[in-house]
Amino acid sequence: MSNADLDVVCIGNAIVDILSHAEDADIGRLDLTRGAMTLIDADRAQDLYQQMGPAVEASGGSAANTAAGIASLGGAVAYVGKVRNDQFGGVFTHDIRASGVEFTSTPATEGPPTARCLIFITPDAQRTMNTYLGACVNLMPEDIDSTQIGRAKVTYMEGYLWDRDEAKQAYLKAAAVAHDYNRQVSITLSDSFCVERHRDSFHELIKGHVDILFANEAEITALYQVDSFDAALQRVRAECQIAALTRSEHGSVVVAGDEVHVVDAVPVAHVADSTGAGDQYAAGFLYGLTHGHGLAECGHLGSIAAAEVIGHVGPRPEVTLSDLVAKQRLTHSSAQKVSSTAP
Amino acid sequence: MSNADLDVVCIGNAIVDILSHAEDADIGRLDLTRGAMTLIDADRAQDLYQQMGPAVEASGGSAANTAAGIASLGGAVAYVGKVRNDQFGGVFTHDIRASGVEFTSTPATEGPPTARCLIFITPDAQRTMNTYLGACVNLMPEDIDSTQIGRAKVTYMEGYLWDRDEAKQAYLKAAAVAHDYNRQVSITLSDSFCVERHRDSFHELIKGHVDILFANEAEITALYQVDSFDAALQRVRAECQIAALTRSEHGSVVVAGDEVHVVDAVPVAHVADSTGAGDQYAAGFLYGLTHGHGLAECGHLGSIAAAEVIGHVGPRPEVTLSDLVAKQRLTHSSAQKVSSTAP
Repeated sequence: MSNADLDVVCIGNAIVDILSHAEDADIGRLDLTRGAMTLIDADRAQDLYQQMGPAVEASGGSAANTAAGIASLGGAVAYVGKVRNDQFGGVFTHDIRASGVEFTSTPATEGPPTARCLIFITPDAQRTMNTYLGACVNLMPEDIDSTQIGRAKVTYMEGYLWDRDEAKQAYLKAAAVAHDYNRQVSITLSDSFCVERHRDSFHELIKGHVDILFANEAEITALYQVDSFDAALQRVRAECQIAALTRSEHGSVVVAGDEVHVVDAVPVAHVADSTGAGDQYAAGFLYGLTHGHGLAECGHLGSIAAAEVIGHVGPRPEVTLSDLVAKQRLTHSSAQKVSSTAP
Repeated sequence: MSNADLDVVCIGNAIVDILSHAEDADIGRLDLTRGAMTLIDADRAQDLYQQMGPAVEASGGSAANTAAGIASLGGAVAYVGKVRNDQFGGVFTHDIRASGVEFTSTPATEGPPTARCLIFITPDAQRTMNTYLGACVNLMPEDIDSTQIGRAKVTYMEGYLWDRDEAKQAYLKAAAVAHDYNRQVSITLSDSFCVERHRDSFHELIKGHVDILFANEAEITALYQVDSFDAALQRVRAECQIAALTRSEHGSVVVAGDEVHVVDAVPVAHVADSTGAGDQYAAGFLYGLTHGHGLAECGHLGSIAAAEVIGHVGPRPEVTLSDLVAKQRLTHSSAQKVSSTAP
């Protein structure tokens, strides 16, 4: 088997985010589903955009955000996703490559424009997302390059891909190729509404094809249709090699068979925008895992990356995460040094 | 004469900003002129963008930022500028209208794309701007709607327009129309390099056609080719009805004949990005002036608006400025109340 020169290949919907601050009242007035990711068509996208306040644009897409985070931590990472050859596609392509991510997917030259996600950030820093998939509907199994998948220790995918059959087939192809190469396969459940739409299919996937699962509390309890986080935890540990379950400000729980780690969140002075928190947690975790760290440290790296991204508007790191991690280690070791010289 | 139902009409280059953090070393490596606005062609724009880090996009353009700021303060304001009917043009149009600004300029349906400004933000929060004018080259005298100019108490324009002859003619037409309606004409000198390019012409303009002048220290000393701020101040007070001269963290000096006001800057906890500081100062000042405030209060409103915009990345307010002003007044009056009840 060839060497893995990539730590992770991420596959997902290639999206440009349009982020705007909104009032709580806007959520009801515009008939949005608070805190969720809702798929919308072109007409609804145009209508919602017209009613949205002034915005900023930033490259997004769940798995693409994770790829950018892994690169920022110093990992070797590739991304697979479909844009069109329009201005937003140019923005997406520039940003992912400028982040240090290998991105070689061919842009569509016809059909719908590059995908956009209209994100309303309410005063509680919660994001309500409305995605027009646009060119993402053209992501097909033939966009999966088996050689590239074989180069990566982990193939990571977003559950959102499940919303389209061709993307789902692309996903299954990538998972099969990865396992042929004896690599690991990872998925995030993405959104509890996404779980509701695809529960049986996700369940089957997790039992048969997933080595590393990411989910938040709402998603994992929705998957198993249980009321308590603990009940879901007991279920998932029997079905999945590694599960990293996030709980917002309560941190995360990482479970791998008999091994369980409760990981604290990293405190944040001011939460500005929760967009991308889960994506960056996955970035930190996968970077740790592909660099030989123990599961507790993987979770801690996830917490550091998530804390950075919720401190500002936008779904990707604003600082170099490897510097941030080095600084935290330095602070930690000098604190230990001080205490060891204290009486 | 008809009533003025607009406080201000702003005329400028309609631009989408592409903002990225950069290292100090990047400025030399990429052969940029630190702190300045440099005009670049399409090839240079493409080359620089490829070498730029991950970015965010936000509607910009100096006079457009000022228009958005005036609207955020509660003023009635219109904007005149030229975009193309492309995705960036759609972003610009959405944002300026969503800010509450009247924007009726017809987009170009052919020719170069909507303008963009590649902004490198160095660790000192200074911005180095590189503008590809694109569709802005199609702003012509016929884009000036005399009726709209007549509706505004003040016609405000950016000095950057002077870089193109047709835009300069549009500018002079608007100034003449405004004076025909017995309105005021205002201009910002925009950039000291811009002043170097057009010194004689600016000088003539200011003596003959400008009622309210905005300039920073570098611009006003460049205009009069003097070494000291005070020397420039003495010159401008003789030539211009009102001059508002900004000095970064040292606040501003407002001069109108014999009247001189030294106005403090509003302190900022953390300066993130100086992009738009001068634009927002002008917004606060012009809002104050068109709402009957004294010159010192106009300068103070400028300081408040400028302080907000440098606290975050991006050239326009992230909060409603009228709320911010109300909050500052409340804090100020309750502080007075407390001291009056103290022994």
